[in-house]
Amino acid sequence: MRTKSSIILVLNSGSSSLKFQLFQMGQEEQMLAKGLLERIGLKDPIMSIKCSDGREFKDKPAIKNHDEALALVCEKLVDPKSGVAVLQSLGDVHAVGHRVVHGAEEFRDSAVVTAEIKASIAKCIPLAPLHNPANLMGIEACEKEFPGVPNVAVFDTAFHHSMPPSSYLYAVPYEYYKKYGIRKYGFHGTSHKYVAESAAKYLRHSLADLRLITCHLGNGCSVCAIDRGKVVDTSMGMTPLPGLVMGTRCGDIDPAVIIYLMRQGMKADEIDGLLNKKSGLLGVAGISSDMREIIEATEKGHEQASRAMQLFVQRLVFYIGSYHTILHGAHAVIFTGGIGENSAYIRSRIVERIHRLGCHLDESKNQVIGRPAIISDERSTLKAMVMPTNEELMIARDTMRVLGD
Amino acid sequence: MRTKSSIILVLNSGSSSLKFQLFQMGQEEQMLAKGLLERIGLKDPIMSIKCSDGREFKDKPAIKNHDEALALVCEKLVDPKSGVAVLQSLGDVHAVGHRVVHGAEEFRDSAVVTAEIKASIAKCIPLAPLHNPANLMGIEACEKEFPGVPNVAVFDTAFHHSMPPSSYLYAVPYEYYKKYGIRKYGFHGTSHKYVAESAAKYLRHSLADLRLITCHLGNGCSVCAIDRGKVVDTSMGMTPLPGLVMGTRCGDIDPAVIIYLMRQGMKADEIDGLLNKKSGLLGVAGISSDMREIIEATEKGHEQASRAMQLFVQRLVFYIGSYHTILHGAHAVIFTGGIGENSAYIRSRIVERIHRLGCHLDESKNQVIGRPAIISDERSTLKAMVMPTNEELMIARDTMRVLGD
Repeated sequence: MRTKSSIILVLNSGSSSLKFQLFQMGQEEQMLAKGLLERIGLKDPIMSIKCSDGREFKDKPAIKNHDEALALVCEKLVDPKSGVAVLQSLGDVHAVGHRVVHGAEEFRDSAVVTAEIKASIAKCIPLAPLHNPANLMGIEACEKEFPGVPNVAVFDTAFHHSMPPSSYLYAVPYEYYKKYGIRKYGFHGTSHKYVAESAAKYLRHSLADLRLITCHLGNGCSVCAIDRGKVVDTSMGMTPLPGLVMGTRCGDIDPAVIIYLMRQGMKADEIDGLLNKKSGLLGVAGISSDMREIIEATEKGHEQASRAMQLFVQRLVFYIGSYHTILHGAHAVIFTGGIGENSAYIRSRIVERIHRLGCHLDESKNQVIGRPAIISDERSTLKAMVMPTNEELMIARDTMRVLGD
Repeated sequence: MRTKSSIILVLNSGSSSLKFQLFQMGQEEQMLAKGLLERIGLKDPIMSIKCSDGREFKDKPAIKNHDEALALVCEKLVDPKSGVAVLQSLGDVHAVGHRVVHGAEEFRDSAVVTAEIKASIAKCIPLAPLHNPANLMGIEACEKEFPGVPNVAVFDTAFHHSMPPSSYLYAVPYEYYKKYGIRKYGFHGTSHKYVAESAAKYLRHSLADLRLITCHLGNGCSVCAIDRGKVVDTSMGMTPLPGLVMGTRCGDIDPAVIIYLMRQGMKADEIDGLLNKKSGLLGVAGISSDMREIIEATEKGHEQASRAMQLFVQRLVFYIGSYHTILHGAHAVIFTGGIGENSAYIRSRIVERIHRLGCHLDESKNQVIGRPAIISDERSTLKAMVMPTNEELMIARDTMRVLGD
């Protein structure tokens, strides 16, 4: 048993938001509280905290920046009067784990934050201009709020570092790779890693014996080919834009579409906004970026919603077929993320198109929502599975691991 | 037997080039002569004609435009003194078939050229700003040179018109599809069609019974999933840029790479040139766009050449795996084009990575160069084949077909 504190705070800082989860690590790995501050620095910020015992706390405080946001979270975590008091003292926090979106080639694993590490994270800003600066703000807020408490950076890209050059290189002049770092990095690595490890445990196999295709289907979507614990390919790229069709992101398109749009007079920011914020399910269906609403509309006969849904399915089937081939056959295709964990409808649409790979759905097992399950039938040589993801817990685990605890 | 002339001239007009082949159609389908004029309108144009009987003709004439180029070709085709005299009279030419690169959604089949058809081809110019204007110049030169002789436009895109929306739509806002025609069209359709038909004949099957994956691997490369004669997906897109790694084209990349390059100050034409002319095998290997030289360098230990070659192979394996899944299994994967027909090395690298699909190479059969052959072994459930392409002959056949001859 550990003697020292094993309370880990996990932060996911966006440009105007701060998400956190507080874990009591150890054999139980208990989540004590989680919360969200939105609209930081904007009009009418919102704060909500939920405790594992069911208590909830909501407020509309004035918060100017991430430092204030974190200070307020900390106050509410310890204060029995105005807060939730899941901690006796802030001194109980052993370490803080931070989600950092882009680690480029610099980071092949999570890292204890130092001045050098912060400089390296800052160096990756051109590759993730919205995310990495926000992640750094979260780290710096913790340095002020928790002096002496270690911060650990856990990168969305790190799990993918094992990809071979034939997967990560783009066929652009090699000097663009060397000079600008233009290559595939992959994202959602923390989720793919968590889900692969959990699936192996569920299947009572060593991850080192399995070839897996993990499908993270949330608002962002990506798919990953994992050969005995090592990523060999993934669908996102230099940025989280390409690959699968997502809520508002286009996924794979002819890059010349952008050249075409440039010639129509569109600027970089407009094109960026178009392809990242107005495309995907929302762009095609025109009604929503939420798969639940897309499916509802599809079932009511909404033609564009149906097209968006079919495009989503087709693109994922395309990747599953590729990765099954690249892996020389996989043991399981695993669905996770909001859509993957909860949508029997989408899982069914996908699995019915991969029966050639030896995967056959058990429709009754497929009714599972948000729980680990094998949803393929007995004769399937490629299993289909549902495995809920938990990126925050993976970040907490990684934080313990790199600190040697 | 036909009584009227069945001599068909096939033209492929580039912005500064004119390629032609002259066919005697009928049961024999004999190629009488072929030739190339390069550097039209530039310094030091070059002209070469080869006859089927082995005679060759070369010249360095002054040619200002496509009209002059075609007039010169015609003169040499009939003149026994200064030319090759494969025709007695230009009046023997029954029709001219033209390769036209982009037919957008307008053209689902080849078409006899009229004023309206020319206007429609012109309407597609924004989608193929380099090719369609040149194709129109070729058509107009023929209208002058062969008054009264029908011209037939044969589109690179037409064979792909059968793709379902889930293959051809991009997940961008639907109005961009409606307004600008931003979708996947696919190219090399004439080659994929020719090769699919030839493979069916070779296998003594009806094309209507076969599911095929055709790999056109030349300087441009594309792969096509064909379900009982109908294309269901293909790797090129709105333009011939995406998909496989090509001689100088990048194929699939994260579209956000272009947004990144825009923010570095690059203009549309520069990015276009970078990704179309300086990328692909040339960009990664840094030495050549020619696969023969890439392989030679790879075998001598040139690291970048080896990377380029592996990237080329990996990308194609990726697509073959996808298409095999989308087709619910294929009967054959077919290699054509300069690389596909001639490179046992590349075919071997690819087939050794798709054994999971039931395809196993027969190394001795794989030594074939430029001839139709089955190169997989007896136990293969997915056959691998070599099938030489002949786009010009396909254009001549289509020209006869749409004229009802």
